[in-house]
Amino acid sequence: MKKSNNQIYSCRGINSALALLESDRFIVNSINILKGGRADKEGRVINLIRDHHVSFFNKDEYYKRFSEGRTQGIVIEFTGNITRSTFPTYKGADNVCLLALDQIEDPQNFGQIIRTADCAGIDGIIFPKHHSAPITQASLQVSQGAFVNMPLFEITNLSQGLAELKKNDFWIIGIENSIDAASWHEIDYSGKAVIVVGSEGKGMRKKTMGSCDFIATIPMQGKTSSLNVSAAVSAILFERQRQLQKD
Amino acid sequence: MKKSNNQIYSCRGINSALALLESDRFIVNSINILKGGRADKEGRVINLIRDHHVSFFNKDEYYKRFSEGRTQGIVIEFTGNITRSTFPTYKGADNVCLLALDQIEDPQNFGQIIRTADCAGIDGIIFPKHHSAPITQASLQVSQGAFVNMPLFEITNLSQGLAELKKNDFWIIGIENSIDAASWHEIDYSGKAVIVVGSEGKGMRKKTMGSCDFIATIPMQGKTSSLNVSAAVSAILFERQRQLQKD
Repeated sequence: MKKSNNQIYSCRGINSALALLESDRFIVNSINILKGGRADKEGRVINLIRDHHVSFFNKDEYYKRFSEGRTQGIVIEFTGNITRSTFPTYKGADNVCLLALDQIEDPQNFGQIIRTADCAGIDGIIFPKHHSAPITQASLQVSQGAFVNMPLFEITNLSQGLAELKKNDFWIIGIENSIDAASWHEIDYSGKAVIVVGSEGKGMRKKTMGSCDFIATIPMQGKTSSLNVSAAVSAILFERQRQLQKD
Repeated sequence: MKKSNNQIYSCRGINSALALLESDRFIVNSINILKGGRADKEGRVINLIRDHHVSFFNKDEYYKRFSEGRTQGIVIEFTGNITRSTFPTYKGADNVCLLALDQIEDPQNFGQIIRTADCAGIDGIIFPKHHSAPITQASLQVSQGAFVNMPLFEITNLSQGLAELKKNDFWIIGIENSIDAASWHEIDYSGKAVIVVGSEGKGMRKKTMGSCDFIATIPMQGKTSSLNVSAAVSAILFERQRQLQKD
Protein backbone atom coordinates (compact mmCIF):
# COMPACT_ATOMS: atom_id res chain seq x y z
CA MET A 1 0.00 0.00 0.00
CA LYS A 2 1.36 3.38 -0.91
CA LYS A 3 1.79 5.76 1.97
CA SER A 4 -0.30 8.84 1.41
CA ASN A 5 1.41 12.11 2.04
CA ASN A 6 -0.67 15.23 2.39
CA GLN A 7 2.11 17.64 3.21
CA ILE A 8 1.95 20.76 1.08
CA TYR A 9 5.31 21.77 -0.35
CA SER A 10 6.09 24.91 -2.22
CA CYS A 11 8.27 25.21 -5.24
CA ARG A 12 9.90 28.57 -5.91
CA GLY A 13 11.73 30.01 -8.87
CA ILE A 14 11.42 29.56 -12.62
CA ASN A 15 13.60 26.45 -13.09
CA SER A 16 11.87 24.58 -10.30
CA ALA A 17 8.44 25.66 -11.53
CA LEU A 18 9.20 24.50 -15.08
CA ALA A 19 10.43 21.11 -13.85
CA LEU A 20 7.33 20.67 -11.70
CA LEU A 21 4.86 21.74 -14.37
CA GLU A 22 6.47 19.52 -17.00
CA SER A 23 6.17 16.49 -14.73
CA ASP A 24 2.99 14.65 -13.83
CA ARG A 25 4.29 13.25 -10.55
CA PHE A 26 2.72 15.87 -8.30
CA ILE A 27 -0.64 17.48 -7.69
CA VAL A 28 -0.50 21.21 -8.20
CA ASN A 29 -2.58 22.96 -5.53
CA SER A 30 -1.95 26.54 -6.50
CA ILE A 31 0.15 28.59 -8.88
CA ASN A 32 0.94 32.06 -7.63
CA ILE A 33 2.52 34.65 -9.84
CA LEU A 34 3.76 38.18 -9.21
CA LYS A 35 2.19 40.52 -11.79
CA GLY A 36 4.92 41.91 -14.02
CA GLY A 37 7.58 39.78 -12.29
CA ARG A 38 10.18 37.58 -14.00
CA ALA A 39 7.98 34.48 -14.26
CA ASP A 40 5.11 36.56 -15.64
CA LYS A 41 7.33 37.55 -18.57
CA GLU A 42 8.79 34.08 -19.16
CA GLY A 43 7.28 32.41 -22.23
CA ARG A 44 8.01 28.84 -21.07
CA VAL A 45 6.14 29.48 -17.83
CA ILE A 46 3.22 31.14 -19.62
CA ASN A 47 2.90 28.13 -21.94
CA LEU A 48 2.84 25.60 -19.13
CA ILE A 49 0.32 27.35 -16.90
CA ARG A 50 -2.35 27.77 -19.60
CA ASP A 51 -4.46 24.86 -18.39
CA HIS A 52 -4.16 25.64 -14.70
CA HIS A 53 -5.97 28.01 -12.44
CA VAL A 54 -3.44 30.73 -11.69
CA SER A 55 -3.55 33.50 -9.09
CA PHE A 56 -1.86 36.74 -10.05
CA PHE A 57 -0.85 39.10 -7.26
CA ASN A 58 0.37 42.66 -7.16
CA LYS A 59 3.59 43.36 -5.26
CA ASP A 60 2.05 44.10 -1.88
CA GLU A 61 -0.12 41.00 -1.81
CA TYR A 62 2.59 38.75 -3.25
CA TYR A 63 5.30 39.68 -0.77
CA LYS A 64 2.85 39.48 2.11
CA ARG A 65 2.19 35.84 1.17
CA PHE A 66 5.59 34.74 -0.09
CA SER A 67 8.16 36.68 1.83
CA GLU A 68 10.84 34.05 2.28
CA GLY A 69 13.63 33.36 -0.18
CA ARG A 70 13.96 34.28 -3.81
CA THR A 71 11.00 33.26 -5.91
CA GLN A 72 11.60 34.97 -9.28
CA GLY A 73 7.91 35.85 -9.13
CA ILE A 74 6.47 32.32 -8.99
CA VAL A 75 5.48 30.02 -6.14
CA ILE A 76 3.70 26.72 -6.81
CA GLU A 77 2.14 24.81 -3.94
CA PHE A 78 1.91 21.08 -4.49
CA THR A 79 1.38 17.72 -2.83
CA GLY A 80 2.65 14.27 -3.64
CA ASN A 81 5.30 11.76 -2.72
CA ILE A 82 8.71 13.27 -3.28
CA THR A 83 10.40 10.06 -2.16
CA ARG A 84 9.95 6.42 -3.15
CA SER A 85 10.55 3.43 -0.91
CA THR A 86 11.60 0.63 -3.28
CA PHE A 87 14.04 0.67 -6.13
CA PRO A 88 13.73 -1.14 -9.44
CA THR A 89 16.01 -4.10 -10.19
CA TYR A 90 17.63 -2.27 -13.12
CA LYS A 91 17.73 -5.59 -14.99
CA GLY A 92 19.28 -5.37 -18.42
CA ALA A 93 20.46 -1.83 -17.79
CA ASP A 94 24.02 -1.02 -18.78
CA ASN A 95 25.53 1.92 -16.93
CA VAL A 96 23.45 2.61 -13.84
CA CYS A 97 24.79 4.64 -10.95
CA LEU A 98 23.05 5.29 -7.68
CA LEU A 99 24.28 7.59 -4.95
CA ALA A 100 23.80 6.50 -1.34
CA LEU A 101 23.92 9.12 1.43
CA ASP A 102 24.74 7.71 4.84
CA GLN A 103 23.27 10.23 7.29
CA ILE A 104 23.72 13.53 5.52
CA GLU A 105 22.06 15.83 8.01
CA ASP A 106 22.32 19.26 6.43
CA PRO A 107 19.35 20.11 4.14
CA GLN A 108 21.55 22.56 2.21
CA ASN A 109 24.03 19.79 1.37
CA PHE A 110 21.20 17.40 0.58
CA GLY A 111 19.62 19.83 -1.87
CA GLN A 112 22.94 20.63 -3.48
CA ILE A 113 23.72 16.91 -3.90
CA ILE A 114 20.35 16.28 -5.60
CA ARG A 115 21.11 19.09 -8.04
CA THR A 116 24.65 17.91 -8.79
CA ALA A 117 23.54 14.27 -9.13
CA ASP A 118 20.98 15.28 -11.75
CA CYS A 119 23.57 17.27 -13.72
CA ALA A 120 25.96 14.31 -13.57
CA GLY A 121 23.47 11.72 -14.85
CA ILE A 122 22.92 9.78 -11.64
CA ASP A 123 19.95 7.39 -11.69
CA GLY A 124 18.76 7.78 -8.12
CA ILE A 125 19.68 8.75 -4.57
CA ILE A 126 19.27 6.36 -1.65
CA PHE A 127 19.14 7.51 1.95
CA PRO A 128 18.01 6.02 5.24
CA LYS A 129 14.74 7.25 6.71
CA HIS A 130 16.32 8.00 10.07
CA HIS A 131 19.21 10.36 10.83
CA SER A 132 19.06 11.93 7.39
CA ALA A 133 18.13 15.48 6.56
CA PRO A 134 14.38 15.42 6.06
CA ILE A 135 13.14 16.67 2.72
CA THR A 136 12.58 20.27 3.68
CA GLN A 137 11.55 23.37 1.82
CA ALA A 138 15.22 24.42 1.98
CA SER A 139 16.56 21.25 0.34
CA LEU A 140 13.90 21.38 -2.41
CA GLN A 141 14.77 25.02 -3.05
CA VAL A 142 18.51 24.36 -3.23
CA SER A 143 17.97 21.43 -5.60
CA GLN A 144 16.58 23.90 -8.17
CA GLY A 145 13.85 21.57 -9.34
CA ALA A 146 16.13 18.53 -9.65
CA PHE A 147 14.00 16.77 -7.00
CA VAL A 148 11.20 16.45 -9.56
CA ASN A 149 13.05 14.04 -11.84
CA MET A 150 15.67 12.48 -9.58
CA PRO A 151 14.37 9.26 -7.97
CA LEU A 152 14.84 9.71 -4.21
CA PHE A 153 14.73 6.36 -2.40
CA GLU A 154 14.06 6.72 1.30
CA ILE A 155 14.65 3.29 2.82
CA THR A 156 14.51 1.94 6.35
CA ASN A 157 17.82 0.14 6.40
CA LEU A 158 20.70 1.31 4.23
CA SER A 159 22.82 -1.84 4.68
CA GLN A 160 19.91 -4.05 3.62
CA GLY A 161 19.34 -1.79 0.63
CA LEU A 162 22.97 -2.08 -0.40
CA ALA A 163 22.82 -5.88 0.05
CA GLU A 164 19.80 -6.02 -2.24
CA LEU A 165 21.60 -3.98 -4.88
CA LYS A 166 24.66 -6.23 -4.61
CA LYS A 167 22.45 -9.18 -5.44
CA ASN A 168 21.38 -7.26 -8.52
CA ASP A 169 25.01 -6.98 -9.69
CA PHE A 170 25.85 -3.56 -8.31
CA TRP A 171 29.35 -2.79 -7.05
CA ILE A 172 29.38 -0.70 -3.88
CA ILE A 173 32.01 2.05 -3.80
CA GLY A 174 32.46 3.99 -0.58
CA ILE A 175 34.12 7.40 -0.45
CA GLU A 176 36.08 7.83 2.75
CA ASN A 177 39.25 9.49 4.03
CA SER A 178 41.67 6.62 4.40
CA ILE A 179 45.31 6.18 3.58
CA ASP A 180 44.63 2.58 2.55
CA ALA A 181 42.02 3.61 -0.01
CA ALA A 182 42.55 3.99 -3.74
CA SER A 183 42.53 7.47 -5.24
CA TRP A 184 39.07 8.40 -6.49
CA HIS A 185 40.20 8.33 -10.14
CA GLU A 186 41.67 4.82 -9.88
CA ILE A 187 38.22 3.33 -9.38
CA ASP A 188 36.12 2.14 -12.32
CA TYR A 189 32.63 3.59 -12.01
CA SER A 190 31.19 2.03 -15.16
CA GLY A 191 28.52 -0.67 -15.20
CA LYS A 192 26.25 -0.91 -12.18
CA ALA A 193 27.61 1.05 -9.25
CA VAL A 194 26.48 2.57 -6.00
CA ILE A 195 28.63 5.43 -4.73
CA VAL A 196 28.31 5.88 -0.96
CA VAL A 197 29.20 9.00 0.98
CA GLY A 198 28.97 9.53 4.72
CA SER A 199 28.04 12.48 6.86
CA GLU A 200 30.41 15.42 7.01
CA GLY A 201 31.52 15.07 10.57
CA LYS A 202 31.53 11.33 11.03
CA GLY A 203 31.86 9.79 7.58
CA MET A 204 30.21 6.45 6.85
CA ARG A 205 28.96 4.19 9.62
CA LYS A 206 30.99 1.03 10.16
CA LYS A 207 28.18 -1.16 8.96
CA THR A 208 27.86 0.85 5.77
CA MET A 209 31.62 0.70 5.26
CA GLY A 210 31.38 -3.08 5.63
CA SER A 211 29.00 -3.20 2.65
CA CYS A 212 31.55 -1.58 0.34
CA ASP A 213 33.47 -3.54 -2.31
CA PHE A 214 35.89 -0.66 -2.83
CA ILE A 215 36.91 2.37 -0.83
CA ALA A 216 38.03 5.50 -2.68
CA THR A 217 39.50 8.65 -1.24
CA ILE A 218 40.10 12.18 -2.45
CA PRO A 219 43.49 13.18 -1.02
CA MET A 220 43.40 16.70 0.38
CA GLN A 221 46.04 19.14 -0.89
CA GLY A 222 45.57 22.16 1.34
CA LYS A 223 46.09 23.21 4.91
CA THR A 224 42.45 22.91 5.93
CA SER A 225 41.76 19.34 5.13
CA SER A 226 38.01 19.04 4.88
CA LEU A 227 36.10 19.06 1.63
CA ASN A 228 32.38 19.78 1.84
CA VAL A 229 30.45 16.58 1.11
CA SER A 230 28.56 18.11 -1.82
CA ALA A 231 31.87 19.26 -3.35
CA ALA A 232 33.27 15.73 -2.89
CA VAL A 233 30.18 14.30 -4.58
CA SER A 234 30.68 16.64 -7.54
CA ALA A 235 34.33 15.60 -7.94
CA ILE A 236 33.41 11.89 -7.86
CA LEU A 237 30.34 12.03 -10.10
CA PHE A 238 32.09 14.01 -12.82
CA GLU A 239 35.07 11.64 -12.67
CA ARG A 240 32.53 8.92 -13.43
CA GLN A 241 31.18 10.99 -16.34
CA ARG A 242 34.72 11.48 -17.63
CA GLN A 243 35.28 7.72 -17.61
CA LEU A 244 31.98 7.08 -19.42
CA GLN A 245 32.70 9.72 -22.05
CA LYS A 246 36.19 8.38 -22.68
CA ASP A 247 35.04 4.82 -23.36
CA MET B 1 51.39 51.74 0.49
CA LYS B 2 49.36 49.00 2.04
CA LYS B 3 45.70 49.77 2.53
CA SER B 4 44.86 49.59 6.20
CA ASN B 5 41.75 47.70 7.09
CA ASN B 6 40.30 48.05 10.53
CA GLN B 7 37.23 45.93 10.05
CA ILE B 8 36.80 43.39 12.79
CA TYR B 9 35.94 39.92 11.53
CA SER B 10 34.99 36.94 13.58
CA CYS B 11 36.12 33.41 13.05
CA ARG B 12 33.88 30.66 14.36
CA GLY B 13 34.39 26.95 14.80
CA ILE B 14 37.37 24.77 15.67
CA ASN B 15 38.85 24.30 12.19
CA SER B 16 38.70 28.00 11.41
CA ALA B 17 40.12 28.90 14.82
CA LEU B 18 43.03 26.47 14.42
CA ALA B 19 43.87 27.84 10.97
CA LEU B 20 43.77 31.40 12.26
CA LEU B 21 45.83 30.73 15.38
CA GLU B 22 48.46 28.80 13.42
CA SER B 23 48.88 31.70 11.01
CA ASP B 24 50.59 35.02 11.73
CA ARG B 25 48.71 36.96 9.05
CA PHE B 26 46.08 38.46 11.34
CA ILE B 27 45.84 40.36 14.59
CA VAL B 28 43.83 38.48 17.17
CA ASN B 29 41.63 40.91 19.10
CA SER B 30 39.82 38.46 21.33
CA ILE B 31 39.43 34.74 21.89
CA ASN B 32 36.10 33.74 23.35
CA ILE B 33 35.43 30.25 24.59
CA LEU B 34 32.35 28.54 25.94
CA LYS B 35 33.22 26.87 29.27
CA GLY B 36 32.91 23.12 28.87
CA GLY B 37 32.10 23.45 25.15
CA ARG B 38 33.73 21.50 22.31
CA ALA B 39 36.63 23.91 21.81
CA ASP B 40 37.33 23.98 25.53
CA LYS B 41 37.94 20.21 25.40
CA GLU B 42 39.99 20.24 22.22
CA GLY B 43 43.72 19.77 22.89
CA ARG B 44 44.87 21.46 19.70
CA VAL B 45 42.91 24.59 20.60
CA ILE B 46 44.16 24.59 24.20
CA ASN B 47 47.77 24.37 22.97
CA LEU B 48 47.43 27.28 20.58
CA ILE B 49 45.70 29.70 22.96
CA ARG B 50 48.26 29.38 25.76
CA ASP B 51 50.01 32.64 24.93
CA HIS B 52 46.85 34.64 24.33
CA HIS B 53 44.45 36.39 26.61
CA VAL B 54 41.33 34.24 26.52
CA SER B 55 37.83 35.01 27.80
CA PHE B 56 35.85 32.05 29.07
CA PHE B 57 32.07 32.40 29.25
CA ASN B 58 29.35 30.33 30.78
CA LYS B 59 26.43 29.32 28.56
CA ASP B 60 24.18 32.28 29.26
CA GLU B 61 26.85 34.90 28.65
CA TYR B 62 28.28 33.08 25.61
CA TYR B 63 25.02 32.69 23.73
CA LYS B 64 24.04 36.26 24.56
CA ARG B 65 27.19 37.47 22.79
CA PHE B 66 27.55 34.90 20.02
CA SER B 67 24.08 33.82 19.09
CA GLU B 68 24.45 33.48 15.33
CA GLY B 69 25.59 30.35 13.55
CA ARG B 70 27.41 27.31 14.88
CA THR B 71 30.56 28.15 16.75
CA GLN B 72 31.60 24.83 18.36
CA GLY B 73 32.27 26.90 21.47
CA ILE B 74 34.90 29.26 20.04
CA VAL B 75 34.74 32.70 18.46
CA ILE B 76 37.89 34.65 17.64
CA GLU B 77 37.66 38.30 16.69
CA PHE B 78 40.47 39.52 14.47
CA THR B 79 41.62 42.28 12.15
CA GLY B 80 43.89 42.26 9.13
CA ASN B 81 43.86 42.20 5.37
CA ILE B 82 42.07 39.10 4.17
CA THR B 83 42.70 40.04 0.55
CA ARG B 84 45.83 41.05 -1.36
CA SER B 85 45.95 43.37 -4.36
CA THR B 86 48.96 42.19 -6.38
CA PHE B 87 50.02 38.70 -7.31
CA PRO B 88 53.56 37.35 -7.48
CA THR B 89 55.12 36.57 -10.86
CA TYR B 90 55.40 32.86 -10.03
CA LYS B 91 58.73 32.82 -11.87
CA GLY B 92 60.39 29.44 -11.93
CA ALA B 93 57.31 27.76 -10.51
CA ASP B 94 56.21 24.55 -12.16
CA ASN B 95 52.55 23.71 -11.68
CA VAL B 96 50.72 26.82 -10.56
CA CYS B 97 46.98 27.16 -10.84
CA LEU B 98 44.94 30.23 -10.03
CA LEU B 99 41.17 30.41 -10.02
CA ALA B 100 39.53 33.59 -11.33
CA LEU B 101 35.94 34.37 -10.35
CA ASP B 102 34.15 36.72 -12.72
CA GLN B 103 31.43 38.33 -10.63
CA ILE B 104 30.42 35.57 -8.26
CA GLU B 105 27.86 37.41 -6.18
CA ASP B 106 26.71 34.85 -3.64
CA PRO B 107 28.82 34.84 -0.43
CA GLN B 108 27.84 31.20 0.19
CA ASN B 109 29.27 30.14 -3.18
CA PHE B 110 32.32 32.32 -2.65
CA GLY B 111 33.08 30.70 0.71
CA GLN B 112 32.47 27.21 -0.64
CA ILE B 113 34.81 27.88 -3.58
CA ILE B 114 37.60 29.08 -1.25
CA ARG B 115 37.24 25.86 0.75
CA THR B 116 37.22 23.59 -2.32
CA ALA B 117 40.14 25.48 -3.91
CA ASP B 118 42.23 24.91 -0.80
CA CYS B 119 41.42 21.19 -0.74
CA ALA B 120 42.31 20.94 -4.44
CA GLY B 121 45.71 22.60 -4.14
CA ILE B 122 44.90 25.88 -5.89
CA ASP B 123 47.51 28.64 -5.45
CA GLY B 124 45.24 31.66 -5.27
CA ILE B 125 41.85 33.10 -6.14
CA ILE B 126 41.47 36.27 -8.22
CA PHE B 127 38.30 38.33 -8.25
CA PRO B 128 37.38 41.85 -9.31
CA LYS B 129 36.79 44.44 -6.60
CA HIS B 130 33.41 45.44 -8.05
CA HIS B 131 30.37 43.21 -8.64
CA SER B 132 31.81 40.36 -6.60
CA ALA B 133 30.49 39.03 -3.34
CA PRO B 134 32.22 41.05 -0.66
CA ILE B 135 34.19 39.09 1.89
CA THR B 136 31.47 38.69 4.46
CA GLN B 137 31.20 36.88 7.73
CA ALA B 138 29.10 34.29 5.87
CA SER B 139 31.74 33.55 3.23
CA LEU B 140 34.51 33.31 5.86
CA GLN B 141 32.36 30.93 7.87
CA VAL B 142 31.56 28.72 4.88
CA SER B 143 35.23 28.60 3.87
CA GLN B 144 35.95 26.75 7.15
CA GLY B 145 39.23 28.56 7.77
CA ALA B 146 40.51 28.11 4.21
CA PHE B 147 40.55 31.91 3.82
CA VAL B 148 43.53 32.06 6.19
CA ASN B 149 45.94 30.30 3.87
CA MET B 150 44.42 30.78 0.43
CA PRO B 151 45.78 33.92 -1.25
CA LEU B 152 42.75 36.00 -2.24
CA PHE B 153 43.63 38.60 -4.88
CA GLU B 154 41.08 41.39 -5.13
CA ILE B 155 41.98 43.38 -8.23
CA THR B 156 40.44 46.38 -9.94
CA ASN B 157 40.34 45.04 -13.46
CA LEU B 158 40.06 41.31 -14.11
CA SER B 159 40.94 41.48 -17.83
CA GLN B 160 44.11 43.45 -17.05
CA GLY B 161 44.98 40.92 -14.37
CA LEU B 162 44.56 38.05 -16.81
CA ALA B 163 46.68 39.92 -19.40
CA GLU B 164 49.43 40.32 -16.83
CA LEU B 165 49.34 36.61 -16.01
CA LYS B 166 49.45 35.73 -19.72
CA LYS B 167 52.70 37.72 -19.98
CA ASN B 168 54.00 35.54 -17.16
CA ASP B 169 53.31 32.37 -19.19
CA PHE B 170 49.90 31.44 -17.78
CA TRP B 171 47.29 29.82 -20.01
CA ILE B 172 43.78 31.15 -19.42
CA ILE B 173 41.06 28.49 -19.39
CA GLY B 174 37.45 29.64 -19.21
CA ILE B 175 34.62 27.37 -18.08
CA GLU B 176 31.43 28.16 -19.96
CA ASN B 177 28.38 26.39 -21.35
CA SER B 178 29.05 26.22 -25.05
CA ILE B 179 28.56 23.54 -27.66
CA ASP B 180 31.78 24.66 -29.37
CA ALA B 181 33.84 24.17 -26.22
CA ALA B 182 35.99 21.17 -25.37
CA SER B 183 34.85 18.82 -22.63
CA TRP B 184 36.40 19.79 -19.30
CA HIS B 185 38.56 16.63 -19.22
CA GLU B 186 40.05 17.24 -22.66
CA ILE B 187 41.87 20.33 -21.41
CA ASP B 188 45.41 20.11 -20.02
CA TYR B 189 45.54 21.95 -16.70
CA SER B 190 49.21 21.31 -15.96
CA GLY B 191 51.89 24.01 -15.93
CA LYS B 192 50.76 27.57 -15.28
CA ALA B 193 47.05 27.95 -15.66
CA VAL B 194 44.24 30.28 -14.66
CA ILE B 195 40.80 28.68 -14.53
CA VAL B 196 38.03 31.26 -14.97
CA VAL B 197 34.40 30.80 -13.97
CA GLY B 198 31.58 33.29 -14.37
CA SER B 199 28.57 34.19 -12.30
CA GLU B 200 25.77 31.65 -11.99
CA GLY B 201 23.14 33.55 -13.88
CA LYS B 202 25.16 35.28 -16.53
CA GLY B 203 28.38 33.34 -16.96
CA MET B 204 31.58 35.15 -17.86
CA ARG B 205 31.52 38.67 -19.23
CA LYS B 206 32.41 38.97 -22.93
CA LYS B 207 35.63 40.77 -22.17
CA THR B 208 36.70 38.03 -19.76
CA MET B 209 35.78 35.38 -22.33
CA GLY B 210 37.98 37.25 -24.81
CA SER B 211 40.96 36.78 -22.50
CA CYS B 212 40.65 32.99 -22.58
CA ASP B 213 43.00 30.74 -24.55
CA PHE B 214 40.68 27.75 -24.14
CA ILE B 215 37.04 27.29 -23.31
CA ALA B 216 35.95 24.14 -21.49
CA THR B 217 32.44 22.98 -20.75
CA ILE B 218 30.84 20.42 -18.46
CA PRO B 219 28.01 18.88 -20.49
CA MET B 220 24.87 18.52 -18.40
CA GLN B 221 23.27 15.07 -18.24
CA GLY B 222 20.00 15.69 -16.44
CA LYS B 223 16.70 17.40 -17.00
CA THR B 224 17.50 20.47 -14.94
CA SER B 225 20.55 21.74 -16.66
CA SER B 226 22.25 24.05 -14.22
CA LEU B 227 25.17 23.04 -12.06
CA ASN B 228 25.92 25.24 -9.08
CA VAL B 229 29.12 27.19 -9.72
CA SER B 230 30.86 25.78 -6.64
CA ALA B 231 30.01 22.23 -7.77
CA ALA B 232 31.40 23.03 -11.23
CA VAL B 233 34.58 24.38 -9.64
CA SER B 234 34.97 21.15 -7.67
CA ALA B 235 34.60 18.99 -10.79
CA ILE B 236 37.20 21.06 -12.68
CA LEU B 237 39.75 21.40 -9.89
CA PHE B 238 39.77 17.71 -9.07
CA GLU B 239 40.07 16.86 -12.76
CA ARG B 240 43.22 18.99 -12.66
CA GLN B 241 44.42 17.06 -9.58
CA ARG B 242 43.73 13.78 -11.36
CA GLN B 243 45.87 14.89 -14.30
CA LEU B 244 48.72 15.98 -12.02
CA GLN B 245 48.60 12.73 -10.04
CA LYS B 246 48.64 10.63 -13.19
CA ASP B 247 51.76 12.29 -14.63
